[in-house]
Amino acid sequence: MKINLHFSPGTVDELYLSDRTVVVIDVLRATSSIITAMGNGAQEVIPVGSIEFAMKISGNLFGGRTLLAGERNTIQIEGFNLGNSPLEFTPETVKDKSVVIYTTNGTKALVKTRFSEQTIVCAFLNLQASAEYLANTGKDIEIICAGRNNQFSLEDNVCAGLLIKLLQSLGSYSISDSASAAILLANNYGADISGMMQNSEHGKLLLENGFAADIDYCSHVSVSQIVPIFISNIIKA
Amino acid sequence: MKINLHFSPGTVDELYLSDRTVVVIDVLRATSSIITAMGNGAQEVIPVGSIEFAMKISGNLFGGRTLLAGERNTIQIEGFNLGNSPLEFTPETVKDKSVVIYTTNGTKALVKTRFSEQTIVCAFLNLQASAEYLANTGKDIEIICAGRNNQFSLEDNVCAGLLIKLLQSLGSYSISDSASAAILLANNYGADISGMMQNSEHGKLLLENGFAADIDYCSHVSVSQIVPIFISNIIKA
Repeated sequence: MKINLHFSPGTVDELYLSDRTVVVIDVLRATSSIITAMGNGAQEVIPVGSIEFAMKISGNLFGGRTLLAGERNTIQIEGFNLGNSPLEFTPETVKDKSVVIYTTNGTKALVKTRFSEQTIVCAFLNLQASAEYLANTGKDIEIICAGRNNQFSLEDNVCAGLLIKLLQSLGSYSISDSASAAILLANNYGADISGMMQNSEHGKLLLENGFAADIDYCSHVSVSQIVPIFISNIIKA
Repeated sequence: MKINLHFSPGTVDELYLSDRTVVVIDVLRATSSIITAMGNGAQEVIPVGSIEFAMKISGNLFGGRTLLAGERNTIQIEGFNLGNSPLEFTPETVKDKSVVIYTTNGTKALVKTRFSEQTIVCAFLNLQASAEYLANTGKDIEIICAGRNNQFSLEDNVCAGLLIKLLQSLGSYSISDSASAAILLANNYGADISGMMQNSEHGKLLLENGFAADIDYCSHVSVSQIVPIFISNIIKA
């Protein structure tokens, strides 16, 4: 089996991903938020690639059952119920709800994988569970880091490196150059994930905007057993 | 001053590069070949983004003064004078010639920077000279690794990491997350560049196609004082 890693969604064509087993990682914060929402009882999460589309599809869903969540440049979008902080996705808020979510990077990366066989939503929070699920599929794996505006994000790639290391402990995988580089990042930064994130470009931006608690929350490793799966435009656990 | 690194040309928009100081790295083999050609007396090198355009502009140049060089998937293009092996660009072959060159990755990356203020052509061969030239400009620097089919190439990014380390020894630069990651790659692989390249995806492909001597040649660090500059669609030393 093979593992390939894309440092950002900009270098991968959506048709290349057709029928493949894909992982999307956006540690800060989209995939961490989605894992949290599913863990706290959301019925489903629908990631969308534009604010307009979020408004459109949420208008067609039953009132009171649907939440609109999302951010642009870290800040909650006006008129939306929630931003993109995982700490907002509490059981009281999301239980049995459909959550339509738009974010600057993560949900666009997810939407780009819509032709995949299945796309696993991964972050530090559910690393071990994601690795076990993926190893059990017996399939080649394409990992896509959401990055930031199509650029490299350190935290996503450290997470990818840790995932690849776990996969290698669970099965026999040949890995791409990019996957080797991510392992190097994981070995260098994996011992202090919170510190790494506070010093990353995206982490600094979040700190400036008052989201220190989000960074702390997203730095916990393998604390969730939830493996959200994106199939047919909808994420379910 | 700032240093930013793009792991592949696919994540950077050509207009973003307008009026910037840019470095393009394609160790295996385009930038190594261009440095060699300029060092061996070529009058100029004209990188092009398509084979058709290479044919077109070479037809308009004086006969006998122009060489067509290039490869597709490592192999010399039929009807061209040269492939993309730096060992072909001997003084006997290239002195006082105009070399029109097309390659699968490197020349496309160069063409993408055509709106830059200036683009430096860099490889292991001219690392020190490139760093000194760049530090003397006093400008922010955008480094683009040519990669392979828009994917990450280990050797280009190790080279970028070594360049960034040299720049930091010559001036005060703040660096992006991607640049930090490249330094980590340079620290890990920099001691055995030839070995790293033989085990990289691109290196393995070249070995399979009989280009072991090219890998050996391209692994030599800072042996050339030539700093080819791409301005107004032409590379001059």
